[in-house]
Amino acid sequence: MAKALAQAKLARDAAPSLASAGAELRSEAIRRAAAEVRASRATIIDANVEDMAEGQLKGLPAPLLDRLLLDEARIVGIVDAMEEVARQEDPLGRVLGGRTLPNGLRLEQVSVPLGVVAIIYEARPNVTADSIALCLRSGNACVLRGGSAARRSCAAIAAACRRGIAKAGLPEDAIQLVASDDHADAVELMGATGVIDVLIPRGGASLIKTCVEQSKVPVIETGTGNCHIYLEKSADPEMAVKVCVNAKCQRPGVCNAAESLLVDDVAAEALLPKVLVALAEGGVELVGDAHARTIAQEVGVAMGKATDADWGTEYLDLKMSVKCVAGLEEAIAHINRYGTRHSEAILTSSYAAAERFLEGVDAAAVYVNASTRFTDGGVFGLGAEIGISTQKLHARGPMGASTLTTTKYLLRGEGQVR
Amino acid sequence: MAKALAQAKLARDAAPSLASAGAELRSEAIRRAAAEVRASRATIIDANVEDMAEGQLKGLPAPLLDRLLLDEARIVGIVDAMEEVARQEDPLGRVLGGRTLPNGLRLEQVSVPLGVVAIIYEARPNVTADSIALCLRSGNACVLRGGSAARRSCAAIAAACRRGIAKAGLPEDAIQLVASDDHADAVELMGATGVIDVLIPRGGASLIKTCVEQSKVPVIETGTGNCHIYLEKSADPEMAVKVCVNAKCQRPGVCNAAESLLVDDVAAEALLPKVLVALAEGGVELVGDAHARTIAQEVGVAMGKATDADWGTEYLDLKMSVKCVAGLEEAIAHINRYGTRHSEAILTSSYAAAERFLEGVDAAAVYVNASTRFTDGGVFGLGAEIGISTQKLHARGPMGASTLTTTKYLLRGEGQVR
Repeated sequence: MAKALAQAKLARDAAPSLASAGAELRSEAIRRAAAEVRASRATIIDANVEDMAEGQLKGLPAPLLDRLLLDEARIVGIVDAMEEVARQEDPLGRVLGGRTLPNGLRLEQVSVPLGVVAIIYEARPNVTADSIALCLRSGNACVLRGGSAARRSCAAIAAACRRGIAKAGLPEDAIQLVASDDHADAVELMGATGVIDVLIPRGGASLIKTCVEQSKVPVIETGTGNCHIYLEKSADPEMAVKVCVNAKCQRPGVCNAAESLLVDDVAAEALLPKVLVALAEGGVELVGDAHARTIAQEVGVAMGKATDADWGTEYLDLKMSVKCVAGLEEAIAHINRYGTRHSEAILTSSYAAAERFLEGVDAAAVYVNASTRFTDGGVFGLGAEIGISTQKLHARGPMGASTLTTTKYLLRGEGQVR
Repeated sequence: MAKALAQAKLARDAAPSLASAGAELRSEAIRRAAAEVRASRATIIDANVEDMAEGQLKGLPAPLLDRLLLDEARIVGIVDAMEEVARQEDPLGRVLGGRTLPNGLRLEQVSVPLGVVAIIYEARPNVTADSIALCLRSGNACVLRGGSAARRSCAAIAAACRRGIAKAGLPEDAIQLVASDDHADAVELMGATGVIDVLIPRGGASLIKTCVEQSKVPVIETGTGNCHIYLEKSADPEMAVKVCVNAKCQRPGVCNAAESLLVDDVAAEALLPKVLVALAEGGVELVGDAHARTIAQEVGVAMGKATDADWGTEYLDLKMSVKCVAGLEEAIAHINRYGTRHSEAILTSSYAAAERFLEGVDAAAVYVNASTRFTDGGVFGLGAEIGISTQKLHARGPMGASTLTTTKYLLRGEGQVR
């Protein structure tokens, strides 16, 4: 048996111990794991220095190196997030509903762990710690396969966490880090039905696509965000500048950054000029339709011609498409056609437009008068997130510990037959 | 474009009208559809007579013909189930959680429809009406592909329902019945990502396996039930006879019927004889392990040798496997290994054994001192069911209207940026 599958089976065997551990014991395990990460920070940083050196040698792009980097401050952030998860309300054993049936059977529906959760991710070592904390919170064993670029950092974090849960009296085999860099390992995990209950890919579009298409284990699709800011005709002009610049420029490489700007035709002359100038000053490359280009030209901002492909592209970079629309309904239709159902925003002062946009746009998170950048487990109060689901089944939006549970119906009787 | 996909796109186009229709309008649509089914019962029965005649000519097995048959009483049952769904609490627009974030953004998570639900099913025409009612209740358009054996009956029911929702002022295209019998139609539906949001197969194991393995559209796995009755050593002997006979014999062809009987070694001599005699009198063919066969022989009941394959087989017939186990933990381990995570029962008078079984068995429904036959949407109070999920993601157990929803985060602000 290949190594990844063997590790998944170790996790499976350890899963019942986690499922039957009480909430306080699982909190304690998270706190112990966090304490071990804190105590091992020198070792973790040493490992990260090696990963970074290899990455620089290999010429990894700067944003990737930034995601890979760990320093004291980031490790404090990792530990804080784990401790936040340890403090969260337990998602297990909640009675979600129930009734006594006419025949006297007492029915209740309770929340239980999924079992074994696998996460395939890329360069960010903190995903290791976030995933472990959320899986412990929800009583699941986990199988982690990080990207090769971060392998030393992830191994150091996982080893610390394993020591922590062992100190709490839970089986360290409930945390499995697949260390190999072989693509065959990922394929093994994707085929491990009956051993792994759910596979969550976190990372770039190509990783996610591979998992969705090839996995036999159920997958929760995460991540890609072709997010829009729509300037409805009554939008506040100053807010438009502030929100567009923030949504596009504050961190362009993340999934909740805006990629496309829509504006009502009738208000384009009034709203666009200042927004385009500010975006251009922020270093944003712009492409747009004919009307937007005319306005850009009038204010001396360069704007290329947008193609149909642009409307569907997640640039993840300082680039943005601009389109003028006939009004609210065209904006909603455009977003529902080209968006990836992640995060979408309208800027408006009209109550009716706001409510219609909230109802009509089909996405995980829909905003009125705010930047799309807030779609995040930490911001939403989940402590950490195991990904942002862009699918509709099981979980949608930032996924906290409660999304790693399923339900069970319990029925207590006295010999009832049908 | 092929026909099934074209129909799915009609449903997609109609979906927003359903999503934005209020609860009362959707209830009214269900009531109107039920009224049209009632008014058209002569037409529906005529269509069913033709389906039955063709089925008899083709030599369909008796249980299949029984599932196909519609008469006045069964149509009353269909109409009653629809009206029950119309009375149910609306699953849409529920605020599932929310908070004001520190930056002032008001966050709420609300329930919304999935969009377009496709159901691929076999001989039971009532699935047509149940599915339509549950999809209307949950604001979803639906694409139905019934089995060819029931095609006239399903068409008559769907036509009545389409008339009903049109009378309520909703688009009849929200209900699409794929009439063709071509396998290519099912393949088209399985590939319709972006048009269909979820595919639910209802029927035999081979249909379900095909959908799970081939569909690109997310699937909710339903149905197969290799269910166990476990006689713990303190089980009441009379209850054991009554529950075993009911779980095996009352309707052996359904997924919640028991397929395998486990009994504690130390109590096998005391508990098994009467149970085996009663099952044999009920016409059940028995296979078992060595200990069970010795007991069967002592009481003059025929029992074949069970192979390892028997432990994993859903007979869906008057056949049952019998195994003696060392105790509670072996029973739980056996069920978790061979069961299909559908419905599992323990008979016991021990509080500790009952609670341990409820916790340790990994299944959609776990019973103490009752027949497994109760796992059913109607019995559980859901009015009707769109299937019984045996998977862990999204929904588990009998699926009512609320399982056909997803969630959306709504965020209202005043220009917040990150």
